[in-house]
Amino acid sequence: MTSTYLTENQERFLSELLEWLRIPSVSADPKFHGDVLRAADYLKMRLEEVGLENVELCQTAGNPIVYADKIIDPSLPTVLVYGHYDVQPADPYELWTSGPFEPVIKDGKIYARGACDDKGQVYMHVKAFEVLNQQGGVPCNVKVMIEGEEEVGSENLGIFVNANKEKLRADVVLLSDTGIINNETPSIEVGLRGLSYHEVEVTGPGRDLHSGLYGGAVHNPINALCKMIASLHDENRHITIPGFYDNVAELSADERAELNKAPYDEQEFKDSIGLPAVYGEEGFTTLERVSIRPTLDVNGIWGGYTGEGAKTVIASKAYAKISMRLVPHQTSEEISQLFQKHFQSIAPEGVTVTVKPHHGGEPVVTPTDSVAYKAASQAMETTFGKKPIPTRGGGSIPIVAMFKTELGIDSVLLGFGLDSDAIHSPNEHFGVFNFMKGIETIPLFYQNYAKLMQAGA
Amino acid sequence: MTSTYLTENQERFLSELLEWLRIPSVSADPKFHGDVLRAADYLKMRLEEVGLENVELCQTAGNPIVYADKIIDPSLPTVLVYGHYDVQPADPYELWTSGPFEPVIKDGKIYARGACDDKGQVYMHVKAFEVLNQQGGVPCNVKVMIEGEEEVGSENLGIFVNANKEKLRADVVLLSDTGIINNETPSIEVGLRGLSYHEVEVTGPGRDLHSGLYGGAVHNPINALCKMIASLHDENRHITIPGFYDNVAELSADERAELNKAPYDEQEFKDSIGLPAVYGEEGFTTLERVSIRPTLDVNGIWGGYTGEGAKTVIASKAYAKISMRLVPHQTSEEISQLFQKHFQSIAPEGVTVTVKPHHGGEPVVTPTDSVAYKAASQAMETTFGKKPIPTRGGGSIPIVAMFKTELGIDSVLLGFGLDSDAIHSPNEHFGVFNFMKGIETIPLFYQNYAKLMQAGA
Repeated sequence: MTSTYLTENQERFLSELLEWLRIPSVSADPKFHGDVLRAADYLKMRLEEVGLENVELCQTAGNPIVYADKIIDPSLPTVLVYGHYDVQPADPYELWTSGPFEPVIKDGKIYARGACDDKGQVYMHVKAFEVLNQQGGVPCNVKVMIEGEEEVGSENLGIFVNANKEKLRADVVLLSDTGIINNETPSIEVGLRGLSYHEVEVTGPGRDLHSGLYGGAVHNPINALCKMIASLHDENRHITIPGFYDNVAELSADERAELNKAPYDEQEFKDSIGLPAVYGEEGFTTLERVSIRPTLDVNGIWGGYTGEGAKTVIASKAYAKISMRLVPHQTSEEISQLFQKHFQSIAPEGVTVTVKPHHGGEPVVTPTDSVAYKAASQAMETTFGKKPIPTRGGGSIPIVAMFKTELGIDSVLLGFGLDSDAIHSPNEHFGVFNFMKGIETIPLFYQNYAKLMQAGA
Repeated sequence: MTSTYLTENQERFLSELLEWLRIPSVSADPKFHGDVLRAADYLKMRLEEVGLENVELCQTAGNPIVYADKIIDPSLPTVLVYGHYDVQPADPYELWTSGPFEPVIKDGKIYARGACDDKGQVYMHVKAFEVLNQQGGVPCNVKVMIEGEEEVGSENLGIFVNANKEKLRADVVLLSDTGIINNETPSIEVGLRGLSYHEVEVTGPGRDLHSGLYGGAVHNPINALCKMIASLHDENRHITIPGFYDNVAELSADERAELNKAPYDEQEFKDSIGLPAVYGEEGFTTLERVSIRPTLDVNGIWGGYTGEGAKTVIASKAYAKISMRLVPHQTSEEISQLFQKHFQSIAPEGVTVTVKPHHGGEPVVTPTDSVAYKAASQAMETTFGKKPIPTRGGGSIPIVAMFKTELGIDSVLLGFGLDSDAIHSPNEHFGVFNFMKGIETIPLFYQNYAKLMQAGA
């Protein structure tokens, strides 16, 4: 029955999603603020349409949080669905083969900013409620909370959750902001890295200078910044910030062996992202480098003349955005302090340095022996025909740690994306297969979960 | 007489210059192409007005060269005046206190892009002819050649000069694209550094990646570029490119002592450009570092996300513009080849590197025992009341070397700017004192030169 309903309605599901993707809900850039609000309104309308109740836009100091619920019986367990309707900036626009906000379906994939991260995955949940309605409705209570500031740090979500603990009381959080290994190999992420993100500014001379008149006598802030950044890794690609690794949880040999059983083909990995060679911390495999090890990357750098042609200038200032991915038991605050202190301390003579922290997030490991994990695992096993592998992902969903702290509940990361979906990059896409597989799997999660909870599993 | 004429006409001279400065003749950016042509037309009109003949816009593959002459007697010596009517890009616009192309006079200074470099200094020559007209006309032959591509490498000027050797035949080149030590200390530059300028591109993965999913497993091209740039100087701030110093002319202890006699106050130097500390090559003074020593500076760097807020991306590519100032007897071609070879050779695993050369220029030392130098020195001594000091400047005017090679003649660098004029920077300016001093001094140069040549000095 589900399968027929899905097939018959696939075209409409996709066209509804495309309509939503056309709204450029970029939270990082104030010029899209009106679009962010339109995207929230659109979601509210669709949640009402599938029968959720108390649908509202909860105001925050930033973008509104879309809330909805359906309480069928207060004695039954409650699932809190989380997701986000905001998207990453789309630049560089020139690298998109079709407009980031003019979604198209090509070769079975939906191309648009947000197609996978996270509008496409949120919309699986909306349509999962529609599917459940065909089967007698949700089998337990549900609360839905979709925010509009995930891509800029979820700061107001934290405040909202803290202020609404009763309203959000639930037994488990269900979210789909992650992926599976590939379409033949389902998996569920049980670990996520944390994040510490900073913007640094290096100032040399008080104004831009002519590089001929002054070159050689002043410390060029771009050269200085490069030197400072270069010093953050040693020759074994370890991070040199004192104390950085102090709280890193080292896995046992058995745990590492288990982790390295996940399917991984180096040539395939390189081909999928056009990489000349893998590169990373000495002593760890690629699978380990992106999951159980912390990292430091420059996410952006700028300074001086960057236009056409040649300008012989020594810039007054140079800038970089530098982020670190964290693993248990590092904390965002601890690492941010270590970074700031260290980066200030390595400022060479002739320049001054300021460090401005952006949002951070905590690393997290979720349990694999919970009822909710079992419900999700069984649902995937049904729809994929294979038991999903628990994996540790390299990305950060800081709110997962926050839900644990604030609401005291674990999350299940039932995502359907692929690493190759190019989220945060030009030509982001999401497979129609994956979108539909999500709509097929999520209702089973609710049914399994309600059943297992009732059985006292 | 001159002095009265100058005083009486100062206001008009300035207003004519301001009119010219209002035309944004930025050669580096194609969007200003129409303005570049308007600036050439304006100059043509003003040269005709002061009685020069054969005034024409000589077409090139790029911007036209404004040519004019006045041959009063073929048996007399000929001075070829060189300058440029194009200007540097004005960005960052937000750092200008008044619009770069809305010139204003404040506290005795003309503020505008090009006020000093080089429209203001070229216009001194135009008005010098007007002054000479009041005194019976030019005392020798003059040819004027003002180009529109100095800020982008003078490539078409080289072609034009090579193709018009007879037309441009002269005994000396006179140009004002340099400066004096300060308004109480006249000086004439007798040495200029050369230039080798490159744009480098470092490519890691084939597309932008999510720094969470991939961070740790790929070589981030921004980190790689920083590492490469950092390695270009050693701990003594020497440049590490193999062979880089092989042809550098080392000055004798006496020559260095002489050079270090020029007025220099470290605190004043730091204050004038808002510098926390001087910095540079071990074993050399600031005066030496900016004149007799070669340098390497990053003039621009960019890659990844540079907008507001935080984006967790690993960029596919990172870029930098890197230039080197050269001294005798380095050559631009030799150093460009060494740089390219070295920069390719230090590309670390996991990234690919391309190096694209921009324009270069040769270092040059001009004679201080020539008739033309004496004529200039005496002219300055008359107008400043002090004999000018011969200095070696840090900037590059590649065409000075080119004139020597192509036309076989030396140049006299009779410039009136100050290091503090912020050329190539926001708030470029030129002192009204300096502008008027140029108009007063240049006519004396012609008169001294004609007299000394006739006397067979």
